[in-house]
Amino acid sequence: MAGINLFLPVHLSAYVRARLYSRWVLRQRQGGKVFGRSSRSDVSPFIVMDVMRAANERAAQGGDVIHLEVGQPSGQAPAGVLAAAKAALDSDPIGYTEALGLPRLREKIADHYRHAHGVAVDTARIAITTGSSAGFLLSFLAAFDAGDRVAVAAPGYPAYRNILTALGIECVLVPVGPESRWQLSVAALAKVEGRLDGVVVASPSNPTGSMLSAIEVAELAAWCEVQGIRLISDEIYHGIVYGAAAGSAIGAGPHAVIVNSFSKYYAMTGWRLGWMVLPEDLVRPVECLQQNLFISAPTLSQIAACAVFDCTDELDARVAAYRNNRDILLNELPSAGFTRLAPSDGAFYLYADIADLTNDSADFCRRMLAETGVAATPGIDFDPLAGAHTMRFSFAGPASDMELAVKRLKAWRK
Amino acid sequence: MAGINLFLPVHLSAYVRARLYSRWVLRQRQGGKVFGRSSRSDVSPFIVMDVMRAANERAAQGGDVIHLEVGQPSGQAPAGVLAAAKAALDSDPIGYTEALGLPRLREKIADHYRHAHGVAVDTARIAITTGSSAGFLLSFLAAFDAGDRVAVAAPGYPAYRNILTALGIECVLVPVGPESRWQLSVAALAKVEGRLDGVVVASPSNPTGSMLSAIEVAELAAWCEVQGIRLISDEIYHGIVYGAAAGSAIGAGPHAVIVNSFSKYYAMTGWRLGWMVLPEDLVRPVECLQQNLFISAPTLSQIAACAVFDCTDELDARVAAYRNNRDILLNELPSAGFTRLAPSDGAFYLYADIADLTNDSADFCRRMLAETGVAATPGIDFDPLAGAHTMRFSFAGPASDMELAVKRLKAWRK
Repeated sequence: MAGINLFLPVHLSAYVRARLYSRWVLRQRQGGKVFGRSSRSDVSPFIVMDVMRAANERAAQGGDVIHLEVGQPSGQAPAGVLAAAKAALDSDPIGYTEALGLPRLREKIADHYRHAHGVAVDTARIAITTGSSAGFLLSFLAAFDAGDRVAVAAPGYPAYRNILTALGIECVLVPVGPESRWQLSVAALAKVEGRLDGVVVASPSNPTGSMLSAIEVAELAAWCEVQGIRLISDEIYHGIVYGAAAGSAIGAGPHAVIVNSFSKYYAMTGWRLGWMVLPEDLVRPVECLQQNLFISAPTLSQIAACAVFDCTDELDARVAAYRNNRDILLNELPSAGFTRLAPSDGAFYLYADIADLTNDSADFCRRMLAETGVAATPGIDFDPLAGAHTMRFSFAGPASDMELAVKRLKAWRK
Repeated sequence: MAGINLFLPVHLSAYVRARLYSRWVLRQRQGGKVFGRSSRSDVSPFIVMDVMRAANERAAQGGDVIHLEVGQPSGQAPAGVLAAAKAALDSDPIGYTEALGLPRLREKIADHYRHAHGVAVDTARIAITTGSSAGFLLSFLAAFDAGDRVAVAAPGYPAYRNILTALGIECVLVPVGPESRWQLSVAALAKVEGRLDGVVVASPSNPTGSMLSAIEVAELAAWCEVQGIRLISDEIYHGIVYGAAAGSAIGAGPHAVIVNSFSKYYAMTGWRLGWMVLPEDLVRPVECLQQNLFISAPTLSQIAACAVFDCTDELDARVAAYRNNRDILLNELPSAGFTRLAPSDGAFYLYADIADLTNDSADFCRRMLAETGVAATPGIDFDPLAGAHTMRFSFAGPASDMELAVKRLKAWRK
């Protein structure tokens, strides 16, 4: 009984032990699958998280690391947010909120659309989520059944692909490149073979930083309405732009879902908070899913976020710093051999085509980290099709990191 | 073009508008499904959340409400937790953590198992989650494929059923009642027709408060190991017990998953934080799923939770208050006509069989709220089979609420 004794508790009666043992032997003989992990648990890692861990290990062993891999603002949330959080710790019980979120925060978000986009949004359509991560999970679950087909740009945010796959939804990769400013277009979608049930667009895009114009967003939304295809518009990098404001799908179609986040422009990354603007037909399904899958988003984060819309001066100063970082990289990376860069209209990313430097971006990034201490993310995280030839630099960190990074990379590539 | 003009943006060219219009007409004529919600979005609401909203609406209209519906501790998290959160707001950048969580918190949890259960747990097997909600979602996704069959007790926590259903996993309801102290048993599971891939047990149970003995947990775990069935042990009410300590599945089998939470005994409800102890074969799948579905759990909550294991005096005082509440209800509810109560060995629930009072527990609870201001949850939330004859009282609130509630209910039932 050696095998099974390893886990049979000692206090079981001899009778129970014997019965369990005989069944166990039977089971072993039948040779059936004894323990499964699900096949859908076989999702790809979000490679940037693994890069982050490798970088942290290097740092823990005394190596220095310049973090150009993780897409998160450095430093703390705005002072007004911290103050609101502290006040809440002194006064509010931090219990659950209603599933769709704190009414006060939902109203603040509706105000935001009124001011920023001139669009009146019914507060009832706004759902507060546990980061945009929960927004994607909830919208994919609410809108799509297993077997449905959803188009996603390649390169694109890897979690779209991996969440869709985990939910049994077919992710239809649509390659994009310089010819469409690395964005989906009606023309590219119309060429997709077979039925489409949904489309995910992201503007500004992670990893490329490229943007759709307001008219392009509207055209995509109208095309989706006409086709009966659910549009999911990822607007989490709105606010971090270096030219014209980003166009929103808000008001562009009665069936579109908008996903947004407090993690990027609003700099509340670890607070795990985002929101959705839902089409009316998905409000109740998302409410029920949220009740069951999340109960509600983190309460202290919701209370603190009510203050963030009054912190725009501080937040815009961060965008100015990102712009400065971007200029440093755009000016200096070419002389380090990174010459083919996607347009960084927004977000805090530069996406580099490095086909002239390597055929294996993962190996390239690993060597770069080991030999220079500069951590960046291989393109395979974003693009299973062509990502072996690309990589992403994040410039969300301090300017001194950008300067040090380009200095090291120039020396390395000499 | 009236219909489509409602959503076609005015800045589209006449050419684009005309093309979109013609396609839209074609589509209307074809009569195809224009916009889907997914069939799986048709999950049941978590009815207690709807009851909470109805109660809040009553309160907003000036009505008074005694909250015996929501399963959350009242009041704030322990002082040590609040102090740690404030200190973190002053010093730590609240960015993402590693996907499996803050190493320091994972070590604290491993220490907890060493002290409370005398079991050494490898820190690598501990995953920090966004509440136990995320723990269930991640473990179900990692362990089960669509079409797999998972046994769940009826009555039981409704989110098990609803999450499983949303993920395409078949939820096999196993009726339990007084004869097995409202708990699953090897005998009941052995009688289930057809294959089983998983079993969810909860001790103490929501909604009944009943518990499995340490030996029963071990027997269930051993039986599952032998059968090759994945055991998910919901231990979120551990610590809130009124007799012997609850038995844990920790160490009971190498393939069991343990889900726990900081929301109940640890009183950090709105902080949305929980943990899992994973079997080795599920560590990497859960890590990848977490990266993609959540990135990481709320960071401030993780930092603050490191302090909670030093707050046991304060937390145990809360358990004493729950015990007092329980005594009030156990003593007084029978004279209000609620005579058939499940054993409340732990958690903060009393589950009442009200078959002698109504055939429609939802209507009964609605009337009770309207006529007495006492909010409680109808059994249909927990038990699609027999819940029309049952209801749940939560006694997590202040003692004064319990006293007022029984006074009103006695007057009502006269």
